[in-house]
Amino acid sequence: MRTSHRSECVINQTVEVLGDQWTLLVIRDIVFVNRRHFRELLTQSLEGVASNILADRLRKLVQQGIITKSDDPTHKQKAIYSLTEKGIALVPLLLEMAAWGDEYLPASKLQGLARTLKEGGPERRAEFMNELRKTHLPPSG
Amino acid sequence: MRTSHRSECVINQTVEVLGDQWTLLVIRDIVFVNRRHFRELLTQSLEGVASNILADRLRKLVQQGIITKSDDPTHKQKAIYSLTEKGIALVPLLLEMAAWGDEYLPASKLQGLARTLKEGGPERRAEFMNELRKTHLPPSG
Repeated sequence: MRTSHRSECVINQTVEVLGDQWTLLVIRDIVFVNRRHFRELLTQSLEGVASNILADRLRKLVQQGIITKSDDPTHKQKAIYSLTEKGIALVPLLLEMAAWGDEYLPASKLQGLARTLKEGGPERRAEFMNELRKTHLPPSG
Repeated sequence: MRTSHRSECVINQTVEVLGDQWTLLVIRDIVFVNRRHFRELLTQSLEGVASNILADRLRKLVQQGIITKSDDPTHKQKAIYSLTEKGIALVPLLLEMAAWGDEYLPASKLQGLARTLKEGGPERRAEFMNELRKTHLPPSG
């Protein structure tokens, strides 16, 4: 997909792609809580995303090549969303956001897997990204 | 400042604080291009920020304790914006955004200091954060 950007700056373009608040929360739920179906993402969202917003953000993430949408082999009528390598590569960014918030936003809570990954350091993070590759990417070769 | 948040999740709260696109671009300009005055941030913005939006985002960043606003000793009529430690701690997050965009957004350009910092690794990054501390934080002790 080609889009026009406000500037060539790499930070600007990353912000444009991820810049909507709901986009990052959808990615968070897919990455850390393994939500793969529309209804799960909708009804189990901590922040109460609206159905039309969720549909729009998923569509844009597919367009950007951050996730793919395919038929779920275990549910005839459901689509399943999977991360691409481009999406899995957002894990370090999500963990930097979590680490900053954990240090500087006193009302926030670093929970579950994000805490485990922070405490486990770079090796545990790389292992987690490999687990995501096994779960989300099509088998290669 | 106390605010109410959509959820306790640390990633959600970080997204709420940084979530507006202009907020991150203002921080980028202060961090990487050392823009410290309102007029510089306004007229030299690559993306053409509007005056009322810039004023609003600077005010919110001061409220959040990410930057401070003070009289510029070298210009009687100007205010100067400086990063706090909370603001300087956003450097790793900005660099992860730059690294991801550099890898996955083909139309983007990793420029200047961000490229130097990426190539220099963690030591060069720590050195840069220390330079920011010397320039922006009040002398301690």
